[in-house]
Amino acid sequence: MLRTVTSLSLSGSAKGSLTRSPAALTTTRKISRSHPAFQGKAQISTASLSEDELKSLQVDRNRLMNDIHHTCQWGTGKRWGSQTTETGMSRLALSDTDKQARDWFVQTTKSLGCSVTVDAMGNTFAIRPGRHEAPPTCAGSHLDTQPTGGRYDGILGIHAGIEMLKVLQDHNLETEYPVGVVNWTNEEGARFPISMVASGVWAEEISLERAHNLGEVGGGTATMKSELERIGYLGSVPASHRSMPIAAHFELHIEQGPILEAEKQKIGVVQGVQAYKWFTIDVAGRDAHTGTTPFSARADAMLTAARLIAHSHRVAAKHSALASTGVLTLSPGSVNTIPGNVRFSLDIRSPVDATVEAVEAQLRKDFAAIASGGNADDPSFPQTSKHKLAVDWTTDTTSAAVNFHPDCIAAVRAAAGSVLGDEGLVRDMVSGAGHDSVYASRRCPTSMIFVPCRNGVSHNPEEHTSPEDCAIGAEVLMHSVLRYDQLRAQRERR
Amino acid sequence: MLRTVTSLSLSGSAKGSLTRSPAALTTTRKISRSHPAFQGKAQISTASLSEDELKSLQVDRNRLMNDIHHTCQWGTGKRWGSQTTETGMSRLALSDTDKQARDWFVQTTKSLGCSVTVDAMGNTFAIRPGRHEAPPTCAGSHLDTQPTGGRYDGILGIHAGIEMLKVLQDHNLETEYPVGVVNWTNEEGARFPISMVASGVWAEEISLERAHNLGEVGGGTATMKSELERIGYLGSVPASHRSMPIAAHFELHIEQGPILEAEKQKIGVVQGVQAYKWFTIDVAGRDAHTGTTPFSARADAMLTAARLIAHSHRVAAKHSALASTGVLTLSPGSVNTIPGNVRFSLDIRSPVDATVEAVEAQLRKDFAAIASGGNADDPSFPQTSKHKLAVDWTTDTTSAAVNFHPDCIAAVRAAAGSVLGDEGLVRDMVSGAGHDSVYASRRCPTSMIFVPCRNGVSHNPEEHTSPEDCAIGAEVLMHSVLRYDQLRAQRERR
Ligand SMILES: [Zn+2]
Ligand SMILES: [Zn+2]
Repeated sequence: MLRTVTSLSLSGSAKGSLTRSPAALTTTRKISRSHPAFQGKAQISTASLSEDELKSLQVDRNRLMNDIHHTCQWGTGKRWGSQTTETGMSRLALSDTDKQARDWFVQTTKSLGCSVTVDAMGNTFAIRPGRHEAPPTCAGSHLDTQPTGGRYDGILGIHAGIEMLKVLQDHNLETEYPVGVVNWTNEEGARFPISMVASGVWAEEISLERAHNLGEVGGGTATMKSELERIGYLGSVPASHRSMPIAAHFELHIEQGPILEAEKQKIGVVQGVQAYKWFTIDVAGRDAHTGTTPFSARADAMLTAARLIAHSHRVAAKHSALASTGVLTLSPGSVNTIPGNVRFSLDIRSPVDATVEAVEAQLRKDFAAIASGGNADDPSFPQTSKHKLAVDWTTDTTSAAVNFHPDCIAAVRAAAGSVLGDEGLVRDMVSGAGHDSVYASRRCPTSMIFVPCRNGVSHNPEEHTSPEDCAIGAEVLMHSVLRYDQLRAQRERR
Repeated sequence: MLRTVTSLSLSGSAKGSLTRSPAALTTTRKISRSHPAFQGKAQISTASLSEDELKSLQVDRNRLMNDIHHTCQWGTGKRWGSQTTETGMSRLALSDTDKQARDWFVQTTKSLGCSVTVDAMGNTFAIRPGRHEAPPTCAGSHLDTQPTGGRYDGILGIHAGIEMLKVLQDHNLETEYPVGVVNWTNEEGARFPISMVASGVWAEEISLERAHNLGEVGGGTATMKSELERIGYLGSVPASHRSMPIAAHFELHIEQGPILEAEKQKIGVVQGVQAYKWFTIDVAGRDAHTGTTPFSARADAMLTAARLIAHSHRVAAKHSALASTGVLTLSPGSVNTIPGNVRFSLDIRSPVDATVEAVEAQLRKDFAAIASGGNADDPSFPQTSKHKLAVDWTTDTTSAAVNFHPDCIAAVRAAAGSVLGDEGLVRDMVSGAGHDSVYASRRCPTSMIFVPCRNGVSHNPEEHTSPEDCAIGAEVLMHSVLRYDQLRAQRERR
């Protein structure tokens, strides 16, 4: 696959590679900024760039990768290979190492001419001025990781945003409207157990109070608020899209799945996010001795749970949906005791809300029938016991399908096409996982860009995306933001 | 059911109820014993009893129950009802409370004319002399319990033996050969993690050294030997059937299963113990995100484990065997991560060794096929992924089927028939659980007697056998021992 994209020449430094004729420069309004990054420099308006000039804007792959690995010194995780960078990450939200990464983010973006705003959830908005005052077009993602996470989930999206700022500075480019990079707090939900909680507060879908009071997992006494205070990221600006409006949100992210790799493709143009529902299923039978209890006298919660889990796969497959069980506990847990109680998680997903509902409805019906001694799962399954077990459903999470904005999707598709020059390397995708872009999309046009990750592995120290693919993704992100900026300008002119 | 056995008049005291004509008495040899229990008393030989006289020997139900509940003051467990006796037991082997129960056992049996021997495993043999010097015919069981056990498992068998000694004393009865009661140490394996370890040492199937060095579960530093020493039950007699030979071993035990209750029967004549094998099954797939990983890219260890567990039931049912999973753990254990690894226990049982082997062989074949993407379990199961998972078997325990001795089985059957007077209340059974009688049977003729327990529940505070059923069981035990004593005498005479 590497050969198909070498024509992009991504390996060389792009710094200063954009050349313009003096005539072109004179047509560009010169702007003075108080910030030293801008002082004394001739600014080129992105709106004035030709399609070819725009296409020639490249990211600096080495700089991008160096920056990523530089910040991974804060929260370095489990080593999995012998190379310096072959470790995972363990940078929990609002930990000391998260503070170090945040401090670097603030310092770096400020040095690139951004004004930095921290809101009451610690969301950090680095905004580079444009020709006009208006809400920024943002690249956003997160710097926190899973406890046994990798170097790319979230981190790549932030660094790609910073690389965009650096490319703009290298070429003295000025956007029509402000552009920014957002670091959303606690996306993973690994330390404070609500995923995407801070973008959720910004979107006003989660209350600030609930978020602030979230306790850390693992029995500690810290809350989100106390940790925000402790590390100095409890901002005074309200965490709300009203106080910090965003014009559009683009997020570059590793796919966290195997499709791009399997299909030998480079960019996923993300149309939206799958709907999903999470349930806890409790199966209650009766503890009994494995040796002295004939099948006819059993109410075997483990056997029933096993059949329900297998059946969830049958039904999901029929609906082209997904069903998964990631957690299962049983009691009492002795080799020679038939478990009386089993609890397991059930995760149902589909790009279509109605499909999730249909799978749930079918499983509610079938689970009850199976637990009552029937064999709705498999007509040939031996009906050995007439004892009925109880199956109890608890709905833990409902997340409706998300459809991203056509303008943003179009910007990403155009950017991917121009960066890769080969539509065969680009595919439309639906995200299987939640991201801050879900909440962002409630309040502004949004889309995402996926890049392949090795074996589809994520939330794992060995999570890996090649430098080439990181650079392609970053370049598509930058071009998406710039194309959206051009779109805004065009619409303004009409 | 109570009505069917009221003709037994078990509720009245049987003390002194055996009357004989003076003529009959004079034919009985009078024996003097040095022990006060025998002094100055005319002894009646059991061999001289007519079938009707033997049949009229009854246990004292109230005395039996009072004794049981009296000793349950040592190690009282969880309360489950409001009555005084409605608590469970928590009397771990060689604990302080086990010492108290043992001291009571020694004192009581000595007062009943027994000589008491403690061996190097703390096995305690209370032996009542007979007319001839020879190894004793014994009733044996255990006084230790599970940490959350009940008042009947093991305890009933010991107390029934003591009640037998009391009935013999009440009637000045003398057996042809010695009879005894054995309290085997640590039958449950709950504190020192080998079940039936001390009868195993006696049978010379477990080495004394291994048993003595067994550490207590839960991280304490005590060993069996240090605890035997501490509570004063490290006897000087070798723990071996060579040093303490037993002529025959009878064990009264609660069924610990639901069959007698379900069939409205009172006595199980135990033919032997089921064969069983315990396995640990490891299923190895690959962790992956539940939302981003299509079925085709999954190697879902939980789904595979669920199918294997369900399939073990299918195959066992076809062979009229048992298969059970009591323990299952998975990793990593997150709602939105497909588990890459699942480990579960598999317990296969059958009265016939070859059946256990056949089930194992079939499952080894089918598990491998299912994990490789086939559907040996259910031809209609959707084959959604070609990814192969690994299934690894570890054999943890192999216990061959035990066949008890025809003479002992016949003695129990005859005793049950004469006590109950209704063959419909008696059934042949195979024990599903292990007991000290398994090791006893390696070195002497052995059988067991089962009585119903409520809902088949055992190893639970609510374990319950009615006073009536306890008394029936004790009476069958006593008659089994006496019938076996008669058999020995008949064979000697020939
Ligand atoms: Zn992420
Ligand atoms: Zn027992």
